[in-house]
Formats: sequence, structure tokens, C-alpha cells
Amino acid sequence: MISVSFEHCQELDRLDPLTGCRDAFDLPPNQIYLDGNSLGPMTHRARAKVQQRLQEWQADLIAGWSHREWLDYPHRLGAQLAPLLGAKSHEVQVVDSTSLNLFKLACAAVLSARSRKSARTRNRIVTEQGNFPTVPYMLEGLGRLATEIQVDVVPRDKLCTAMTDETALLVLTHAHYLSGEVFDLVEMSSKAHAQGIQILWDLSHSTGVLPLNLTQANADFAVGCGYKYLNGGPGAPAFLYVREDLQATSSSVLSGWLGHREPFEFADTYVPGEGLDRFRCGTPPVLAYAALEGALEIFEELDLGDLRKKSLALSELLITLLGPALEKGALTLVSPRNRALRGGHVSFRHPHAQRIMAALAQDGVVGDYRPPHFLRFGLSPLYLRYVDIWAAAEKIRRHVDAVAA
Amino acid sequence: MISVSFEHCQELDRLDPLTGCRDAFDLPPNQIYLDGNSLGPMTHRARAKVQQRLQEWQADLIAGWSHREWLDYPHRLGAQLAPLLGAKSHEVQVVDSTSLNLFKLACAAVLSARSRKSARTRNRIVTEQGNFPTVPYMLEGLGRLATEIQVDVVPRDKLCTAMTDETALLVLTHAHYLSGEVFDLVEMSSKAHAQGIQILWDLSHSTGVLPLNLTQANADFAVGCGYKYLNGGPGAPAFLYVREDLQATSSSVLSGWLGHREPFEFADTYVPGEGLDRFRCGTPPVLAYAALEGALEIFEELDLGDLRKKSLALSELLITLLGPALEKGALTLVSPRNRALRGGHVSFRHPHAQRIMAALAQDGVVGDYRPPHFLRFGLSPLYLRYVDIWAAAEKIRRHVDAVAA
Repeated sequence: MISVSFEHCQELDRLDPLTGCRDAFDLPPNQIYLDGNSLGPMTHRARAKVQQRLQEWQADLIAGWSHREWLDYPHRLGAQLAPLLGAKSHEVQVVDSTSLNLFKLACAAVLSARSRKSARTRNRIVTEQGNFPTVPYMLEGLGRLATEIQVDVVPRDKLCTAMTDETALLVLTHAHYLSGEVFDLVEMSSKAHAQGIQILWDLSHSTGVLPLNLTQANADFAVGCGYKYLNGGPGAPAFLYVREDLQATSSSVLSGWLGHREPFEFADTYVPGEGLDRFRCGTPPVLAYAALEGALEIFEELDLGDLRKKSLALSELLITLLGPALEKGALTLVSPRNRALRGGHVSFRHPHAQRIMAALAQDGVVGDYRPPHFLRFGLSPLYLRYVDIWAAAEKIRRHVDAVAA
Repeated sequence: MISVSFEHCQELDRLDPLTGCRDAFDLPPNQIYLDGNSLGPMTHRARAKVQQRLQEWQADLIAGWSHREWLDYPHRLGAQLAPLLGAKSHEVQVVDSTSLNLFKLACAAVLSARSRKSARTRNRIVTEQGNFPTVPYMLEGLGRLATEIQVDVVPRDKLCTAMTDETALLVLTHAHYLSGEVFDLVEMSSKAHAQGIQILWDLSHSTGVLPLNLTQANADFAVGCGYKYLNGGPGAPAFLYVREDLQATSSSVLSGWLGHREPFEFADTYVPGEGLDRFRCGTPPVLAYAALEGALEIFEELDLGDLRKKSLALSELLITLLGPALEKGALTLVSPRNRALRGGHVSFRHPHAQRIMAALAQDGVVGDYRPPHFLRFGLSPLYLRYVDIWAAAEKIRRHVDAVAA
């Protein structure tokens, strides 16, 4: 029945150029963790960095802010992330949460559209229905305050027709949070631009598992998450990207004191900080940044091509190993069969998805149940082995069979 | 010259009911830390809680979110803070930063003013000039998006005349970030209300050092900081307060997925969460919350009257000990001489403030320099002894004399 042997998986692990990365992680024993797309596991370096910053807080107190690396976190980690996004180092900043960064950049786009002279007033924002909902929620919030803004939440196949000469901004989640299907960054950015529309990408489900090319796509704005494939810890700081030529004219509505050009002057009048500094708001949570700082070290010498290649090999392996269940209709593949369209996770549909996922967790295979009937498996190439996928598939088959029995 | 002896200070320490609190802190040796109003020092419990949450992340991974105390942090720490604010447990939530919470609640007030029928449109927000500038900066940001909103930033003595029937909201920082002078919460709240104006208090410089009475003042909204007198660590989460009767009609513009009534349904349509849950936005940064969680334990069995009494005794002692320098005009007291108007810190003016503060730091007394010429000393009653103030005053006098020589 099964087309790939355990021994073949062992051989793939032996040949894996990323095999050493697993040692960077402090993984709990007896668990195959297929949920790193929800919360990445802890690296030894993440723990060590948190310990270091705790020690600095204890010993240096306020001096931590003046002669340590705390205040510079947003800029420094942004520069570290930039290569993963195909962006320039001064185009990325690590700050606040994904939702808040979405708000900031959508507002920047709205203000920029207001200031442009054009035949039609562009006061609509288009986004996708059925994708991760913080996008429409935050845009709706924006529209509650700026009542001239209308948000069009439309199915994927209506996106192009929804974009009109009244549209200021298109907001898309690059890898779908359920199916993992990825948009073509270059193609969609260029479609938006062709109609005079700016584009804002949510890269939460793709950053750290596949190479991104924001510069090549000429993307205007992007945001993303620090605690999924970047392994920055629960609720880690998020990131934002603004293309360099847009930075000087981009305005931050969430203009807190640390976004001021000279925050320590405590001036009454707001003057936006240089470049992306204006998108800072309050004081950076040093301990939360520390875990992300440690976690990002693993990406420093990584070949993103190797990462993508192994990620796709893992998802291909899982789909192959579950082939019999798919063929007999016991499970339905929700993710794209075409690997070029696949992100870092693979999802299946099953009427008893919730029960199966709970049973799998009991059995040492941890994935995500998503309502109403999705089984979602995150296949991080940094710490997962081919043999893990083999063992997980075996258990998935068993538990799918069990609910059918 | 000096009216209080070292021995008298030792006696005061012996009689101090808060003396045991100092043991909760892991203070660096050979330093008198008078900057806990900028960044509170680490407690042993704060460190232990961070270690615990790190361990949970390592071992439990995604299950941390489902059967641990992570997701409930905003609500749980809010309830712990409520007694310090004179508020009810369901009126306080710990979330995001002070600046962001200011924005959320100012927006809630603006939306609420829009929805009320009144003779005049209330679209102005009044705030104080020369106080901590994140308040006017964030309000300006709000006004950039909601262009009908005008922000009036006026000196303290013009606040009352600036409030008109066009004013929707008054935003005040309770204890002035430079002088420490406190507003009368009850009086100012009632002045605003008498004119149909809502009030939003920034309690950053008063929470944890003096008792607050939001309920008695019938205050509408408040925000404040977790890393000053609350000792929650660098960039700790902040808090917000909304009076219970306003919660159902208060709308959050920063409406992220965790503020949804059923966030794990991932519905396309936003429905605000119950009560203050709607003011949540993104995923809570667990490690940052952990430090604050540990730090708040010290307040559990504390008598806030004792706290205030010692805080005032410490500032009175410092002013007394610096009396000769004040009398001869070598230093100028910026904080109120009247102790009832004094917050938790004491500030002095000196033309060479920056030089003096740097010399003091070299000499083991750490305070804050604030431009252009302020020496600011935070006198946290939890870990400072009377003998510390005696020793600090001696060094301050010496360094003030030295710059004059």
C-alpha cells in the first residue's frame, strides 16, 4: 500500500543539508510536532537570550536602555529578517503585533491615497474572504474611525473584479491560513499596481519557511508574525515592511513617543522618526524580543532554497504517505496538489477532524484542528525529519481509520 | 546644617511596615536606585515566572495556549491590578502598550460622541501641554485618520477654559512626568462630566505608588504603564480601564482577532468580545506578561495607605535633606512643596542637571536626567530605605556643590 519505506526516509534524513538545524531546538521528547506554523518550538539560543536580557534588567536597570541593545531591537531584528523577505535591511522593522502593523500600514495607504490627486477618490480596501480574519477585522476597525473607507471582503475568485478605480489598497495573506495555498507575490502585486492600487501582504504563514521576494514584486507594504516559522515564542513581536521609496511619505497613525524623531527630547510637537522608526509606538518589550532574537540566529547562514526544497519534500511525502486514504476518500486534501502553490503547511478535510486531531495529540502527533473540519499540519523543515513524517502519517492513517470503524 | 541624622533614618527603617518588601527584589549591589519610575527593578518572582513560562513553551508548545494560563493574561492581570486603581476587577485589562491603549480608548470616546445626539457636534479633544508627549502624539495620530477631530494641547492653567461644548474628551496624565504633581482625580473628572465631556486618565506615573480611586471619581477611561512602579520589566504590557457601564457601548478601532467574541471560530465577520475582551488585539506576548505577573504578586497583601505614607515620607526626607541647597538657590524644587499634590517622584531644576546626573550615576546614585535641566528621582517605597535617601542626598549635595566650584 505505502509507496515510501521508513528506510528510504532514514536515507533522506542522512542526505538532508538542514539536518544539523534540529540540534538548535529544545524539542520535548516523544512528540512529533506538526504545529510550528501556530507556535514554533524553543531554540536553545532563544532561551539563552531571554536569560541574558533578564540578567541585564537585574544588573543594569535603567542603563539597559542607554548602553545595551534593547532600544535598537525593532531596527536590528528587522535587518536580520530582511533577507528572508527579499527586502532591504532598512525596509523591515520588528514591532508590535501583526494586527497592529496591519492597521498602521493600511492607515498609511489610506492617508497616502487621500493626499494623491486622482480622477476618482480611492477610498475602498479590498481583501479576501475566508482567510485569517484579523485582516478584515482590523480593516473594519479602520473604517469605523475613517468612515469614508469601505472594506470589500470578497472570495478569492472575485478579487480582481473587486479592484476598481475607487480601490486604494489590496490586502492579501500570502499563504492561506487553512489551505496553505500561496499567491504569486509578483503577479498579484503587479495586478494591483496596474490599476493604481497599493498592495499590503500578510506574510505570517510564509515567513521563515519559503523564500520571499518583496523587492522583486515591488510590493508596497507587508506585515508578518514572529511566533510561527520564526520560532520567536508565544506572542513574539511581529514585523512590518515598507518599500524604501514609500517610507518618507508614509505616515503612522499610531504615532507613539518612540516613533518621534527625537523621542528623548519629549517635545510637545510630533515629528515622525526617520524611515521606519516612525512606525514604532510604545516601549519595546525586551524579554519578548529576546526570544525572537535568539530564534532568528538559525536563519543567518541558511540557504532559503534548501529550506523551501525540504519543506516541499516533507509536504509531498506526507501527501504521498496518506495517498491511500485520499484515494478512497477517507480524507480530502485541502492544500494544493501542485507543489508550486503550496506553502509550509498541509491541510485535510474530514467530518470528524476535531476528534481525530485530539486523538493524534494523545498519540504524540501534534497538529491544529481548525473549524469546522480541517486538520492542519505545519511541516517546518528546520527540525522535522523525514522519519517524523513517516511516523506521523502512519498514526494519521490509523486514527482516520479508527473514526471510520 | 542637616536636620535629619543617619541614625534617625535607621530608626525609621526599623519601624517601616514595608521593610520586608525589599527582600522581594533582586537589587544590584552598591547602587541606590532612584529610577524605578522609569524602569522598576526585578523581583525574584518576576524572574521565576519568566523561567516557568519559558519551560512551558519548551515542554507544552501549542498546548500552552489551550490548558495553561497564557491566553487569560489580559483579564487575569487586569483583575490583579484593579485594587491598585480603585476599580472593579472586570474594569481593567492588561494589554499592549500605554500609547496603544490611549489610542483605543480615545477612539472609543470619539465613536461614542459621534453616536450621541447633542446640540453641538463634539469633535475636540483637550489635553495638557508639556506633559508626557505620547498623549498628544497619539491623539494627533487619531486626528490624522479622523480629520474632523481637533486636538487642543493647552497649558495646565488653560485646561478648564479649553473645555467647551465641542469637547468630547479630556485626556490627562495624573502625575506629571516631570514635576510629579498630581491632579485631583475626582475633581477633574467631575469638572469634565459637568460639561458633558468624558475623561481619560494616563496613570503611568502613579500606579503602584499611591492609591487611586477611579470608581470614586466615576472616571470613564484610564490607561497606564506596567514597567514603572509595577516593576513588570522593560517594555512590560500596559493596562486599560473602562468603567463598567461604558463597556457594552465602547467600540475598539484596533479590533484584532483576539478581541472577537469567538476568536477560535475564525469567522469572517467581526463581533466584539464581551466587556473589555474587545480591546484585545493580537496574541499576548507571554514572556513579557510573565515578568509582570511575578512582579504584581508583591501588591497582593499590601496596604496602599502604607505605600503612600512611606512614599511621601521618602520624598519629604529628600527635600528636607536637600533643604540647604534649595535655600541657597543651588537647586530648585520643581515638585510641589505641598505633599498632598506630590506623586511618587521628586524633581529639581539645575542648569547643569545632565552633568550632575551623570556624575551621580558614576557615584552609585541612579536617577533620570530630563531635558533641558531636570533631575528626577523616583522614590519607590517598596525597596528604598530611609538610609538610602540619606546617602543619596549626601551625594546629590556633593555633586551639586562640585559643579558650582
